[in-house]
Amino acid sequence: MSVEDRLGQLNIVLPAPPRPVANYVPACQVGDLLFISGVLPFDNGQLRMKGKLGRELTIQEGYESARLALLNALAIVKQHTGALDRVKRIVRLTGYVASASDFVEQPAVVNGASDLLVELFGDSGRHARLALGAAELPMHAPVELELIVQLHEMN
Amino acid sequence: MSVEDRLGQLNIVLPAPPRPVANYVPACQVGDLLFISGVLPFDNGQLRMKGKLGRELTIQEGYESARLALLNALAIVKQHTGALDRVKRIVRLTGYVASASDFVEQPAVVNGASDLLVELFGDSGRHARLALGAAELPMHAPVELELIVQLHEMN
Amino acid sequence: MSVEDRLGQLNIVLPAPPRPVANYVPACQVGDLLFISGVLPFDNGQLRMKGKLGRELTIQEGYESARLALLNALAIVKQHTGALDRVKRIVRLTGYVASASDFVEQPAVVNGASDLLVELFGDSGRHARLALGAAELPMHAPVELELIVQLHEMN
Repeated sequence: MSVEDRLGQLNIVLPAPPRPVANYVPACQVGDLLFISGVLPFDNGQLRMKGKLGRELTIQEGYESARLALLNALAIVKQHTGALDRVKRIVRLTGYVASASDFVEQPAVVNGASDLLVELFGDSGRHARLALGAAELPMHAPVELELIVQLHEMN
Repeated sequence: MSVEDRLGQLNIVLPAPPRPVANYVPACQVGDLLFISGVLPFDNGQLRMKGKLGRELTIQEGYESARLALLNALAIVKQHTGALDRVKRIVRLTGYVASASDFVEQPAVVNGASDLLVELFGDSGRHARLALGAAELPMHAPVELELIVQLHEMN
Repeated sequence: MSVEDRLGQLNIVLPAPPRPVANYVPACQVGDLLFISGVLPFDNGQLRMKGKLGRELTIQEGYESARLALLNALAIVKQHTGALDRVKRIVRLTGYVASASDFVEQPAVVNGASDLLVELFGDSGRHARLALGAAELPMHAPVELELIVQLHEMN
């Protein structure tokens, strides 16, 4: 089954890809590597949740935020490539989690993105990963993701 | 106009490239990708500003710090390649901003680097980007940048 | 002398490679680049030290933690490649150091990893590097490392 079909099966509609509001671009391709700009959990142009893990937000809310941020990253990939089936491999995901003092469950939060990657891409979605705490993130976002993907070569 | 000419036109003199004081190198090339070591806003071997955004420093000071740190990165690129015109594409910039509690304007700070990249390199300077808050940075630097650039192949 | 021989000469036994406990993999290869997942200073499945630099831990303890985390990364490289001699170049190391307020000696901590890389790999071990403070790291780890290495092509 194609990734686009799996999205439909899961009733997932990709959000509109975030538009950079400064001098950068959503994604930059070098050879078959696509570097995605940092993504936040936007939904219809708004952050769905704000705040820090270990203070305003629960791990489950963080998990959902990571999943939503990942959908923003995939919307960028689709915008860049035309179709998610152009993805050959998810290479690396870094999850920065806005963390109140002593919150150290960053991996459980970033799983929201990792789980969706494997749901959608199967083994090709298994990626190298980092999960880290951040002191502060733009706009009080709970999560920011960095993603590198490998694309199939164009014929 | 060449990038070197644009630098002159903007009256920008690159700082001396920072010298690593430990077991690492300013830049490492793999294929046509050049990975630059983390750069701080050094000027004549000294940090021009110290402190955190949202406490000691204003956004404008952060913006200028990001611009200066970027010049240090470009000095490394020039040292490595001989000339900035060897740059084919600015691939990715990560800006870590030393952030006091509740400072969330990291993107406005990192714009200091992004704006200069586009001023100098035009569309080739449009990069994928992350802007993040850091709890602490080396030597109380306000900003640390990570840069990946693509080089033209040597003939 | 081979890297494997140098390990023996230094009486270094690599730890068991950390096993991801979620939907990600220890390393992902694209072309000749190997991206390693974030590694913590594990020893026999346990963090040898916990806490923040500038509070619970000294710089020397941080240095040893970075060295141990690096051994975990090398264990992953060996698991992936079969032998450390497949490494052509250490490309980039990022060291995130759990930092209490006002601790800014992150480079001295990350040297624990950088020094070992050069001890083992010689000039091929000289890498681009970032050293950063992190607000919090998973499981109260003092250090988390990110590593990219270039592999020799298989014949």
